[in-house]
Amino acid sequence: MAMDKINVGLIGVGRQGTNHYNNLLSMPNVNLEYICDLKVDESWKKKFQNIPHVVKDYHEVLNDPSIQAVMVVTSTDSHAQIVLDAAKAHKNIFCEKPFSMNTPEDKIRDILHVVKDNGVKLQMGFNRRMDPQFQEVYQGVRAGQIGDPQIVKTTSRDPFVLDKELIKRIGGLPWDFTIHDLDLARYMMGSNITEVYAKGGTLIDPTLKEIGDVDTIALVLEFENGAFGLIDNSRQAVYGYDNRVEVFGSKGMLKAENVSGSTVELYTKENETQKNPLPIFTQRYHQAYVDEVNSFFKSIIENKPVVADGVDAIMAQRAVIAVDESIKTGKPIKVDPHFTL
Amino acid sequence: MAMDKINVGLIGVGRQGTNHYNNLLSMPNVNLEYICDLKVDESWKKKFQNIPHVVKDYHEVLNDPSIQAVMVVTSTDSHAQIVLDAAKAHKNIFCEKPFSMNTPEDKIRDILHVVKDNGVKLQMGFNRRMDPQFQEVYQGVRAGQIGDPQIVKTTSRDPFVLDKELIKRIGGLPWDFTIHDLDLARYMMGSNITEVYAKGGTLIDPTLKEIGDVDTIALVLEFENGAFGLIDNSRQAVYGYDNRVEVFGSKGMLKAENVSGSTVELYTKENETQKNPLPIFTQRYHQAYVDEVNSFFKSIIENKPVVADGVDAIMAQRAVIAVDESIKTGKPIKVDPHFTL
Amino acid sequence: MAMDKINVGLIGVGRQGTNHYNNLLSMPNVNLEYICDLKVDESWKKKFQNIPHVVKDYHEVLNDPSIQAVMVVTSTDSHAQIVLDAAKAHKNIFCEKPFSMNTPEDKIRDILHVVKDNGVKLQMGFNRRMDPQFQEVYQGVRAGQIGDPQIVKTTSRDPFVLDKELIKRIGGLPWDFTIHDLDLARYMMGSNITEVYAKGGTLIDPTLKEIGDVDTIALVLEFENGAFGLIDNSRQAVYGYDNRVEVFGSKGMLKAENVSGSTVELYTKENETQKNPLPIFTQRYHQAYVDEVNSFFKSIIENKPVVADGVDAIMAQRAVIAVDESIKTGKPIKVDPHFTL
Amino acid sequence: MAMDKINVGLIGVGRQGTNHYNNLLSMPNVNLEYICDLKVDESWKKKFQNIPHVVKDYHEVLNDPSIQAVMVVTSTDSHAQIVLDAAKAHKNIFCEKPFSMNTPEDKIRDILHVVKDNGVKLQMGFNRRMDPQFQEVYQGVRAGQIGDPQIVKTTSRDPFVLDKELIKRIGGLPWDFTIHDLDLARYMMGSNITEVYAKGGTLIDPTLKEIGDVDTIALVLEFENGAFGLIDNSRQAVYGYDNRVEVFGSKGMLKAENVSGSTVELYTKENETQKNPLPIFTQRYHQAYVDEVNSFFKSIIENKPVVADGVDAIMAQRAVIAVDESIKTGKPIKVDPHFTL
Repeated sequence: MAMDKINVGLIGVGRQGTNHYNNLLSMPNVNLEYICDLKVDESWKKKFQNIPHVVKDYHEVLNDPSIQAVMVVTSTDSHAQIVLDAAKAHKNIFCEKPFSMNTPEDKIRDILHVVKDNGVKLQMGFNRRMDPQFQEVYQGVRAGQIGDPQIVKTTSRDPFVLDKELIKRIGGLPWDFTIHDLDLARYMMGSNITEVYAKGGTLIDPTLKEIGDVDTIALVLEFENGAFGLIDNSRQAVYGYDNRVEVFGSKGMLKAENVSGSTVELYTKENETQKNPLPIFTQRYHQAYVDEVNSFFKSIIENKPVVADGVDAIMAQRAVIAVDESIKTGKPIKVDPHFTL
Repeated sequence: MAMDKINVGLIGVGRQGTNHYNNLLSMPNVNLEYICDLKVDESWKKKFQNIPHVVKDYHEVLNDPSIQAVMVVTSTDSHAQIVLDAAKAHKNIFCEKPFSMNTPEDKIRDILHVVKDNGVKLQMGFNRRMDPQFQEVYQGVRAGQIGDPQIVKTTSRDPFVLDKELIKRIGGLPWDFTIHDLDLARYMMGSNITEVYAKGGTLIDPTLKEIGDVDTIALVLEFENGAFGLIDNSRQAVYGYDNRVEVFGSKGMLKAENVSGSTVELYTKENETQKNPLPIFTQRYHQAYVDEVNSFFKSIIENKPVVADGVDAIMAQRAVIAVDESIKTGKPIKVDPHFTL
Repeated sequence: MAMDKINVGLIGVGRQGTNHYNNLLSMPNVNLEYICDLKVDESWKKKFQNIPHVVKDYHEVLNDPSIQAVMVVTSTDSHAQIVLDAAKAHKNIFCEKPFSMNTPEDKIRDILHVVKDNGVKLQMGFNRRMDPQFQEVYQGVRAGQIGDPQIVKTTSRDPFVLDKELIKRIGGLPWDFTIHDLDLARYMMGSNITEVYAKGGTLIDPTLKEIGDVDTIALVLEFENGAFGLIDNSRQAVYGYDNRVEVFGSKGMLKAENVSGSTVELYTKENETQKNPLPIFTQRYHQAYVDEVNSFFKSIIENKPVVADGVDAIMAQRAVIAVDESIKTGKPIKVDPHFTL
Repeated sequence: MAMDKINVGLIGVGRQGTNHYNNLLSMPNVNLEYICDLKVDESWKKKFQNIPHVVKDYHEVLNDPSIQAVMVVTSTDSHAQIVLDAAKAHKNIFCEKPFSMNTPEDKIRDILHVVKDNGVKLQMGFNRRMDPQFQEVYQGVRAGQIGDPQIVKTTSRDPFVLDKELIKRIGGLPWDFTIHDLDLARYMMGSNITEVYAKGGTLIDPTLKEIGDVDTIALVLEFENGAFGLIDNSRQAVYGYDNRVEVFGSKGMLKAENVSGSTVELYTKENETQKNPLPIFTQRYHQAYVDEVNSFFKSIIENKPVVADGVDAIMAQRAVIAVDESIKTGKPIKVDPHFTL
């Protein structure tokens, strides 16, 4: 499929959908044809007067034959159905993570079959894979710069505890946060997870227990290739958004340190000071959000594999479920590394 | 003057004008109404079909009463006349550096009077002042973080020797390169230059002598407040675009190191490696080019002083002329720090 | 006890004993009176002619009433007996780690009682506690710079796989290596370990399985205060001796990065390179080895607590045993955080 | 000359002599046989009872045929005579910098002839050449890592203004401080200085003018190979002892940054902080002081060239005199790069 511009519909324009909306507008090869959200009313049409169609029902987007790709950024529980419908309508699909939180794997498998049978792309929104720092590490690992990877470590710490109502909607720490680390660790390692042992606690805000959530997680992973992984998460790093990756191997180590955006050093009588890491994920991953969508469109145009697909969604889901179970049972949980469509 | 959007004419669309063109397009509060260039022909109108007016004669831009600001990015020898005409036409003016290379100061003074009498802004394109790293240093110095500044040091090294034909057009190393360091050193110091002693040589490409140019400069400055400055320039740093600033004072030191954009560290048997500084000024100063123009528009909208004005142009010109003379005569050259309109 | 110089006997002069021997010689307030080793013969007396007494039987050292302190650097299985005899002989004791590998805790408790009853000091050789970098982190944590510690992470990677015969003598990876991380993590956290879950593998040298050892360990800890720890170990980091610590807390984070000893940066066409971390523990911990012994002597002279005592030995031993068991059983192992003499 | 141990006499035990004294004691291959100082009285003999001979008259040292090397650390005005006498007495000589401040070059040439004719070594105390960081840079430059060196930059800033009485004795800023930068710049460049232009001012302590001294220096150098140098000096960097070197060349750049000795990073709500550079030259250059003396003894034992010889002393002296003259006259001063014994 050769094309100059790609016609896109954006389904879901909440917190994360707005982020994608702004990025889509800045992409020269994108015609954003549809804004679609359950909350659409007359005020939206005014607000988005630059967009040809502002609709409430996503079927309107899917029924438009000119639309080549949809971005599914709705609430998690609606992902499965919309992806299924979009695939049937022959639309290429970008779907935010997680694919689901409680959909049985059999049902997901069926959806992936429909995706495959209709010859459309399905890309999952694991944006960190496309972060320029992490991509540089990933490319280095794949190029053999560190030999066989043996240990992967990721750290993700948010700058502040989210509102509990928001947490209830988007899922607890494992579904919101750890899922990215699990996916990134697996991506870096190039091998599937076979076991998870996770500890979780409420060291920051004990009232999170009321909604069954934790604010601190430390876990150890085993991979199919025999390698290990270590992940730590916190809901509150007062010094900013802390996201780092380290991959250690037989021939060396690759690390991506935090990004502050500043190279300024101040020396005073007391000490040397530098700027903290960027304060929040929207700043740190701005480029990643742009790049993942560009990469999705490029996959469509050049008919190449997407950077994160449906199997990646299933593997991430299995690992998160294992994290949840491990925290609750206090036991290491085996994860099935095998999956065939 | 309160305004939602600002109507802009871009005069001169060569190497640097194209850079500004792309940035102007991405600014949400800018209506780019005119593209103006001596080379405009039918093909330009096709190429810039998204721009309402594509013209050859800059008077057309100046005669349009809806235009509030012009960007003068033509060849240096035409700056003075266009700025004069634009001021008379009551347009706010952004003018690329240098203001001129051979215009007598009296004539520049007359032009600045016209600018002043017509109540328009004139901002010079000293983009480095708005580089985020250098701004951070500047703000720190102004906030007193390092007390009284005593020594300022800047390093500017290009990644490769420019084409000699291009050098002939834009001026030798002092006019193309050192002028930025001189302006930045003075900006950081907050005091005018009173003396320059400069050494220049052709250590990289001896054939530059044929066009009266050098490829390496090292100089020492004295400022009106008694402080000193050191600048070094090279036309060829094989490791990338090297631009750093250090300000030392009675209570500390502020430094802005190079920007590589990467935080990735690779450890192998041999050593640790990191990415080089960004390869070229267009990458390093992308944000600075955007920010200086935004700052210009903000100065117009909020009726505030511009970040670099006509007096800054004159002071930079005096210093560059002194550098030229010092290199040629082998003597320290006094620079008059006083100027009153 | 006020004293100018302290009379010392060194018991055990193998690999690590020689290290201490050289350091003792350079300490101005130490009279090294005895060299004692099972291998002592006539050649030793010649080699150590600067030392007053070179003996085979450690009882000779203990029977000399002028000796105030002994350094026990013999093979691990002899530690318990020598420490017991030394305590009975009223000698202050520095004992290399580990205290033992198979001595039942009851027996150790009895020895610690003798130590206490005889009013002598017993310091364990957990040298990393006294590494200047780690001390700086420790002091910062204790001073409240990062608030309540919530996550501690340590990395220890050796530069090459030890000889299997040596491993058999000094114990496998948990006893040689992980014990330091466990002790350091507990030291930093200021809380006892309550659970260990450890994964171990032979990713580097599969023949280590023959002697029941591993070359790679990744583990997660739980502390009595509810906090978590992550440790990773490798027998072979090709880029040098990799030892880092990170403590994350409610008010910030403290990290100690590796030490290369070099501040030199080389920029070439390809990239920027810096020197690798120091190649081996004897270089990285040279100052720590000196400081821990000086600290021991200072504790004696000023009658202050030692930096690592018998209880620390027991806590470390419990944790290592749990690591061993966890690796073997694939289960998380509870560790008793309580101990009273 | 093959020798196990070398018999040394230390002449001059003031501020710097005491530094050397302590280092000599820690060197296993040195017999420090003589302490010699004009202030020697009975109390000295008690204080230095571990040294065989404590004498007032340096001729006693020179007359002892067992002495192989002398360290001349007396006041600068006595260097020339003692070096001359020592050379005549066939002693190898380590002489602190500067060799002299007012001795005519002809007279120095005569002394160097005596040194040469008597076949002894004369090493000047340009300790920075042996600083491990700067040696690494030097070795890299010599190995061609950066191609042809084109620009050398050094920064030296003391942590506080010295007592004026001390300054009067040891010479002003150029003789105490800048001389090291001039020597190091020339050492790195591998080419002699041909011109100096220096600015000096009293930006920190105006009362230094009373003794004809300055507290801030900025200068530009030209080398015989056409390359340039930039040096800046300050008597007061409140953040510690600031000593850095940068060499830029046709194939890259080598930099030695300051040494703090700490790799600890503290992240708090406000920013990231690290430790300042080491506070004073005795700490920063401790290893350099040891290494330069060891290198001297090695030159004697292996009969190899010293790291800094009499010609280096003359070249440094010429450059410092030029700095002095340039500051006073406001003119660039030519320096003769040629010297033949």
